Amino acid sequence: MKVLVISPVARRPEEHLPLGGLATAARPGTSLEKVYLDHGPASVEGELDRALATPGVVIRACEAEQQGFDAVMIYCVADPGLQEARQAVHIPVVGAGQAGMLVGALLGQRFSLVSPLSSSILFYENQSKVYGLEGKLASVRAVDIPVLELDHAPEVSMRAFAQASVQAIEEDGAHVIVLGCTGTTGWGPRIAEELESKGYPGIPVVEPAICALKLCEALVDMGLAHSKRTYPSPRVKPTTGYDRLYDLLMTLEH
Amino acid sequence: MKVLVISPVARRPEEHLPLGGLATAARPGTSLEKVYLDHGPASVEGELDRALATPGVVIRACEAEQQGFDAVMIYCVADPGLQEARQAVHIPVVGAGQAGMLVGALLGQRFSLVSPLSSSILFYENQSKVYGLEGKLASVRAVDIPVLELDHAPEVSMRAFAQASVQAIEEDGAHVIVLGCTGTTGWGPRIAEELESKGYPGIPVVEPAICALKLCEALVDMGLAHSKRTYPSPRVKPTTGYDRLYDLLMTLEH
Amino acid sequence: MKVLVISPVARRPEEHLPLGGLATAARPGTSLEKVYLDHGPASVEGELDRALATPGVVIRACEAEQQGFDAVMIYCVADPGLQEARQAVHIPVVGAGQAGMLVGALLGQRFSLVSPLSSSILFYENQSKVYGLEGKLASVRAVDIPVLELDHAPEVSMRAFAQASVQAIEEDGAHVIVLGCTGTTGWGPRIAEELESKGYPGIPVVEPAICALKLCEALVDMGLAHSKRTYPSPRVKPTTGYDRLYDLLMTLEH
Amino acid sequence: MKVLVISPVARRPEEHLPLGGLATAARPGTSLEKVYLDHGPASVEGELDRALATPGVVIRACEAEQQGFDAVMIYCVADPGLQEARQAVHIPVVGAGQAGMLVGALLGQRFSLVSPLSSSILFYENQSKVYGLEGKLASVRAVDIPVLELDHAPEVSMRAFAQASVQAIEEDGAHVIVLGCTGTTGWGPRIAEELESKGYPGIPVVEPAICALKLCEALVDMGLAHSKRTYPSPRVKPTTGYDRLYDLLMTLEH
Amino acid sequence: MKVLVISPVARRPEEHLPLGGLATAARPGTSLEKVYLDHGPASVEGELDRALATPGVVIRACEAEQQGFDAVMIYCVADPGLQEARQAVHIPVVGAGQAGMLVGALLGQRFSLVSPLSSSILFYENQSKVYGLEGKLASVRAVDIPVLELDHAPEVSMRAFAQASVQAIEEDGAHVIVLGCTGTTGWGPRIAEELESKGYPGIPVVEPAICALKLCEALVDMGLAHSKRTYPSPRVKPTTGYDRLYDLLMTLEH
Amino acid sequence: MKVLVISPVARRPEEHLPLGGLATAARPGTSLEKVYLDHGPASVEGELDRALATPGVVIRACEAEQQGFDAVMIYCVADPGLQEARQAVHIPVVGAGQAGMLVGALLGQRFSLVSPLSSSILFYENQSKVYGLEGKLASVRAVDIPVLELDHAPEVSMRAFAQASVQAIEEDGAHVIVLGCTGTTGWGPRIAEELESKGYPGIPVVEPAICALKLCEALVDMGLAHSKRTYPSPRVKPTTGYDRLYDLLMTLEH
Repeated sequence: MKVLVISPVARRPEEHLPLGGLATAARPGTSLEKVYLDHGPASVEGELDRALATPGVVIRACEAEQQGFDAVMIYCVADPGLQEARQAVHIPVVGAGQAGMLVGALLGQRFSLVSPLSSSILFYENQSKVYGLEGKLASVRAVDIPVLELDHAPEVSMRAFAQASVQAIEEDGAHVIVLGCTGTTGWGPRIAEELESKGYPGIPVVEPAICALKLCEALVDMGLAHSKRTYPSPRVKPTTGYDRLYDLLMTLEH
Repeated sequence: MKVLVISPVARRPEEHLPLGGLATAARPGTSLEKVYLDHGPASVEGELDRALATPGVVIRACEAEQQGFDAVMIYCVADPGLQEARQAVHIPVVGAGQAGMLVGALLGQRFSLVSPLSSSILFYENQSKVYGLEGKLASVRAVDIPVLELDHAPEVSMRAFAQASVQAIEEDGAHVIVLGCTGTTGWGPRIAEELESKGYPGIPVVEPAICALKLCEALVDMGLAHSKRTYPSPRVKPTTGYDRLYDLLMTLEH
Repeated sequence: MKVLVISPVARRPEEHLPLGGLATAARPGTSLEKVYLDHGPASVEGELDRALATPGVVIRACEAEQQGFDAVMIYCVADPGLQEARQAVHIPVVGAGQAGMLVGALLGQRFSLVSPLSSSILFYENQSKVYGLEGKLASVRAVDIPVLELDHAPEVSMRAFAQASVQAIEEDGAHVIVLGCTGTTGWGPRIAEELESKGYPGIPVVEPAICALKLCEALVDMGLAHSKRTYPSPRVKPTTGYDRLYDLLMTLEH
Repeated sequence: MKVLVISPVARRPEEHLPLGGLATAARPGTSLEKVYLDHGPASVEGELDRALATPGVVIRACEAEQQGFDAVMIYCVADPGLQEARQAVHIPVVGAGQAGMLVGALLGQRFSLVSPLSSSILFYENQSKVYGLEGKLASVRAVDIPVLELDHAPEVSMRAFAQASVQAIEEDGAHVIVLGCTGTTGWGPRIAEELESKGYPGIPVVEPAICALKLCEALVDMGLAHSKRTYPSPRVKPTTGYDRLYDLLMTLEH
Repeated sequence: MKVLVISPVARRPEEHLPLGGLATAARPGTSLEKVYLDHGPASVEGELDRALATPGVVIRACEAEQQGFDAVMIYCVADPGLQEARQAVHIPVVGAGQAGMLVGALLGQRFSLVSPLSSSILFYENQSKVYGLEGKLASVRAVDIPVLELDHAPEVSMRAFAQASVQAIEEDGAHVIVLGCTGTTGWGPRIAEELESKGYPGIPVVEPAICALKLCEALVDMGLAHSKRTYPSPRVKPTTGYDRLYDLLMTLEH
Repeated sequence: MKVLVISPVARRPEEHLPLGGLATAARPGTSLEKVYLDHGPASVEGELDRALATPGVVIRACEAEQQGFDAVMIYCVADPGLQEARQAVHIPVVGAGQAGMLVGALLGQRFSLVSPLSSSILFYENQSKVYGLEGKLASVRAVDIPVLELDHAPEVSMRAFAQASVQAIEEDGAHVIVLGCTGTTGWGPRIAEELESKGYPGIPVVEPAICALKLCEALVDMGLAHSKRTYPSPRVKPTTGYDRLYDLLMTLEH
């Protein structure tokens, strides 16, 4: 099965990053391809970035359907373009944020989402309502490190996430931690160890990007995709300044 | 006071429409100016259109703050760019959707939103949750007439809205009707009359665009704007393909 | 437009207070008149006071409708008589409490209400449910100063409100403050300054009485009033001890 | 044990009714006394009536505490004065409405309240929220017979209640019926039989007045009363027009 | 009236305990009989114990119906077998947990449940949702003393419950305390005194086992039992390893 | 990876069924083994059956952990023993019900669960609350065919499920269908076709057993299991009549 991984940021070809932990998480038989956007923000850290990424994500999803991919995953916990791409295509589209929250809901009574910046706390609270999971959300916490600086000093960042996770457990009643940035993919086991060393063994630390990949695999295996009653195909009509998207939608419609 | 009315659609200058019912609704001392977007959809009928309108709405809001407007209103019940523009500027930004729902909540136990197309039902349900008003929402109903065709046969459209309103009252328990498209501005009293003639007197029919204008006036009078704790200013950082927006955010920051 | 301001307390003519900050908040063209009750409590600080004020508020609302007022506002955050007056009359009736909570909901993710006495905390929690806004209420906090003593040492009272607001922000996650007593009308900007000086800029401090006035103006402008499906006219029938009210209801019915 | 039954309506001595079904429902050792109000409405059918009854109910509750009663019950499903009386006295005060809803919640997944007039539907919906039982309320239905006419043709009224109960079961998913008027006390078994004859056996039909009596007996047996943290004693202060109440509160305070 | 008290633990005859505080709480005319299970856990402290007790509780409830008991109460706050026994029999079945929570809801705005072990916190949170009372639950707290050790040093245990109750009041906003173990029956007044001595007078301390007894008495008095629409009789069919239960269900069916 | 499939019913060896659709749904590298219970019901159709199955499910889960299985799935939408088995073991335990509901939540706005018998409607409503998904549940519907008769006339049963699904879409607003019995595994595509032929294309029909398998695979791939803070290991203590279970728990503890 072929899964397209959309990184919802604009980045020049020479800056493209490899799949990293995601590649090793794919099971045999799953082939991954990663793409970036032509237009979009440098990182997704709030409502505005998310909006700027959305048109590009829909374009990439349409291209994926055209090119025969079996599923699309959005490599960002803010899920930019998730609802919109689901309207545009019929193949499954999975966002890291919704995937991570659902796995968090599966594994315990309440989860906390630990994210890089406090500017996205409101957004994640609202998303949990849209996904129908607000009753499972213990809290959203932030470590106040910009996304693009997370790997400047990974040990420091990791400890900051572990520290915020401890606070989520002690003060907010979290039973599960969901990492709030795909930039932390691969850190889960290390943070779980930290939690164990601080007296909290048996706390799952969920990595949303990997959850999204696993749910893509699961949906393709099951032959399921999102409901077209929830995500009806958009009526295609003229737009100004989004020619590439318009052309793709016109093509897919026929 | 000066209020900018942002119509979140791209339209050539020769197609610009006058303010219509909104002009007469402004009180003496309120001056209105209406703008369209350079890039965006032809109409807003679902999640995707909304996303395409958002960058343009934020640009217009930034320009309004630069040019000394006292407040901004978004002339669309889907509130494209509402959260994002509030992050970008300090002057009040009011969306027709949130304004109409709040007035609906003020006037009765439960309101129904009657919108042109069923493709936006999911969206309005989700918005009511984000606005914290899901407990007041009786239902979202659609008349299945595209936005741009509403005024092809206004009498027919108006009767369709009245008919859907009757169903909302009878089947969903609505006590108040909120019209789900700014394209219906001015139809309220006619629809209320229709409801009265069908045995439902005393049902307020709320016109969201006018509510947004009235709330702009009220907020400016009171010297209040949205909380910067909910809508923190975005960190300005490079984007690809949104130069105008980037320049505006850089300017406003200084 | 003529708006009647009902202060829901009994007070001898020589003790009547002027309109204060409310007068300057009215826009040109709005004329205000303030009345007190013949029978009622000295101040409204809990469920029982609220009940004692209700018959008098309904009487004043009926008189307002008879005398051609365009709208009525109840000058008290506990909204005594709001539901009952809406049943009795057709002109808009706005309570400071509901108005302040709705504006709080408009401006941010969560608001806290800061009130004089803890005896009304339960009441405000319940009202937020009745108004469908419990999901937006971060907390109710009290400064423990009786209403009638608020202006004995206004500086002290104001600092107490600011202090409780800081706690609401830090401990309860409030993004907006709603002042829980009309006796604080005019203190908003000062409290907002205090908050800014304590490290919390950009927090709106909402004054419910002014919100009620602005919503009265807005509703009259829009030609809207409360739903008669939510607030059906009461069947008029004999009562003992409420002759004045009975006569008014009889008159309005015909 | 001595329980005072407060009928929250004003009625001349010659019109006082006996205890009826309530007397036979009391267990041996419980002595009941029934009182009416000096001032108040002729019947309680909406928010306004409820407000008019409240001061009188508090007066009667204070008198009961003075005279050594063990508990007070309010003989009306609208629970006028329930919160206020609990603030004023320390002996248990039970309202028929809250009692009936709690027993409804005990006996099945969802209950419907069937009340005389539709003017109280909104009120009961709101009360269920205040009592924390909105998730158990399937619906409120009305038979549109005024309270004082319920016993003009009891057979007709009873059939109307049974018919509305059937609709509540079939259309609203009710599993339990709570009768929404104390004027129907004694009708429960007959209505349950009707339901059985219409194909719905095993549906409890709850009579709120009897529930209130049983909860009074239970609370006195257990030595429990309402929390003074929820219902703090009111600060006693001057009122105009409520001298009797003021005197009682002053006396109880010392 | 005859009420069967089912202690949902397996215990040899020589270990059976007398009724204790429950006996004195019964009113004249109520005769109690206490039984244990043949198969089951030694104490109920979590989901698993609860599951092991359930078949035995249903057996005892069936026997009670066969033998002419008027009602059954389950002497355990975890309510093992409550739903299942209600399906099997027509006489009222009351669980201490649901009874205690309902009385907690009756007496104040929010109650906290104080239980022996933290292993049951999750369970009680979930039960409050199933009973529709999650909005009234301030918190569940645990003293971390196993059920069977509660009476090793009753003074120590009692103080631990009082201490946890103080924390529930101060940190969680509890207005009422519900004791989370029937092993504490009789401790209520002592804990209430402790709370008073620590500055919290007027806090009801609810003993669930006694509440269950009182609700049994109330239901039998009122001739009410659980809804057969919520708890339909099970289709009787072969089981392996539960012969006694199967035989009883077969007998009751005919 | 080795996954144990626990069918929570007692069945003699000669009656054991093959894995059926589940076998083909497993990906290469996943080996499945199916077991039945020694003691338990013949089928799971309500609360009582579920209780009778629970001890046996926990036994099978303990054995699986002892024997080196990587995960356990419960082959029943009622999830008997899910919470209890998670307390007992550290390997992931996935129930078909929770798995199906989570996938339903992933794929659309609201799902309906279509189950064999109406006796389990209440149960599924409650489970959706325990899983935090009540806001996504449109309804539970039943076809009124006992579980063990589903395959007597599979075509009839399938049409009944399709018919109930159509009602869920039309009357309850379902966007996704979750089949409420593992006995329907394999019917999904056929029912989806039926829905398409009746005018409802693009409706996912979710098969919970396959979802459980896919989530087992995903969790094992990710190295995640349930939170031990939500599901703490039970204190092992004597039980009567559950020797096998006691021995297993004792063994696993060391």
